[in-house]
Amino acid sequence: MRVAVIGLGLIGGSIAKALKANTAHEVFGFDTDPDVLLDASSFGAIDGVAAPETLASCDVVYLCLYPEDVVRYVEENGAHIAKDCIVSDACGIKGFVVPALTALSRKFGFTYVGGHPMAGKEMSGFAASDAGLFTGASYILVPGDAPQTAVETLERLARAMGFARIEHCTAAEHDRRIAYTSQVPHLLACAYVMSPECEHHAGFSAGSYRDVSRVARINAALWTDLFLANRDALAAETDELLKNLTRFRDAVRQGDRESLTSLLEMARERKERFG
Amino acid sequence: MRVAVIGLGLIGGSIAKALKANTAHEVFGFDTDPDVLLDASSFGAIDGVAAPETLASCDVVYLCLYPEDVVRYVEENGAHIAKDCIVSDACGIKGFVVPALTALSRKFGFTYVGGHPMAGKEMSGFAASDAGLFTGASYILVPGDAPQTAVETLERLARAMGFARIEHCTAAEHDRRIAYTSQVPHLLACAYVMSPECEHHAGFSAGSYRDVSRVARINAALWTDLFLANRDALAAETDELLKNLTRFRDAVRQGDRESLTSLLEMARERKERFG
Repeated sequence: MRVAVIGLGLIGGSIAKALKANTAHEVFGFDTDPDVLLDASSFGAIDGVAAPETLASCDVVYLCLYPEDVVRYVEENGAHIAKDCIVSDACGIKGFVVPALTALSRKFGFTYVGGHPMAGKEMSGFAASDAGLFTGASYILVPGDAPQTAVETLERLARAMGFARIEHCTAAEHDRRIAYTSQVPHLLACAYVMSPECEHHAGFSAGSYRDVSRVARINAALWTDLFLANRDALAAETDELLKNLTRFRDAVRQGDRESLTSLLEMARERKERFG
Repeated sequence: MRVAVIGLGLIGGSIAKALKANTAHEVFGFDTDPDVLLDASSFGAIDGVAAPETLASCDVVYLCLYPEDVVRYVEENGAHIAKDCIVSDACGIKGFVVPALTALSRKFGFTYVGGHPMAGKEMSGFAASDAGLFTGASYILVPGDAPQTAVETLERLARAMGFARIEHCTAAEHDRRIAYTSQVPHLLACAYVMSPECEHHAGFSAGSYRDVSRVARINAALWTDLFLANRDALAAETDELLKNLTRFRDAVRQGDRESLTSLLEMARERKERFG
């Protein structure tokens, strides 16, 4: 197959590298930064540049751009995409991207399947990308009414990239789940390091400080987009955390030993049950 | 030297193992569970049992029990401790233990230096203890008016156990720092897994879920004691987090892009500056 990866940042770069490392498919890449394109070529992460005329012969296109850029890219280049091409994206929030790309897929005739590779790190850009980034990770697909064969093609590619688990859901389910599993922890890490005590943590901290604060090293532009694209679900899930944290705080403040122990035991049971 | 370790759980067991592994000191241990004493002997973590009559010839005693048990142990056994002995503890909160043990050290004549090894894991008991638990970790001492030579003896032992950094502070400073670096993350992990969404995280979660929820696998009895021994500082630091998290939540709910980006950028800067 001929695969195009549009946007060679952390995720796009890792998709290109993983496909080159683990499959015999031809991989074409595009990035607005010419230095990144050069790096990707010299590194052997791509076989060539995914110029508009190359798109026409591609079987699969991965759009690895910020949500709004994904939509703009397809609006501008959709006419070059073959009608039997499978287009997917890597956006962390599906509510805005899935309806927009579904509409564009009908307009231009290609098949669209939403995708979200559940992997990342606290660095961004092609330099941070890694053929092993997806090893053991989970990949979420939002198939909508795409043909089963298209979904299976993306699943085979995902397994080849190293993904260990593949989930299917709707865009709304995806965004509600992600608000909890990913967005709240990022918001939390950022809120946590705002305490004046953060300045004095060195020498007084260990694993639990490190783990909660880790993702505060955030890409502010990207996450502003992701948070605002999921406003309602994220605000609701943050409210849930504020409510629960307040229950613990109240038990501590009131010195209510019985309630505190029972809350902690319930938390431990949930963590052991749900992993 | 002859060193006694009272309480051979995760921390006491690790102290005994680290001293046996890295020094030539004689190590005596005590635990109310006879099976643990037997395990520690067969494992070679102790050279003998720290019976009351053994205590009299010990140069250093580490009390690795829950805060209230530390005080009770010294009330009952303080008369057996030599007047030139250095006694330390491993309690995670100093506000209750330091004044109580300082008073008991005056009554019985030994030297007391509060201690807090900043290491742990989500398992407890001797079986989870490990000679390498403290490698690279931080060790906090609350010397009060103890002689410098006693503090230096504990520091040498700590370096031998693998600690990489040693901090000195007062009990009040310690508890304020720890409320932020350790207690809030534990309370937070427990509050986080209380969301109904936790039940559906599998397949939709990655590193940030795992890191925030990790310490929800909590020892409820131990942490109830630790939280309640630090009520005021912990409630105040939790309020600080609730306040900051609410600012982020408000920016999300109101779709206030400018405020949200600027909050995220501030968080990133703080994380990069303070580590």
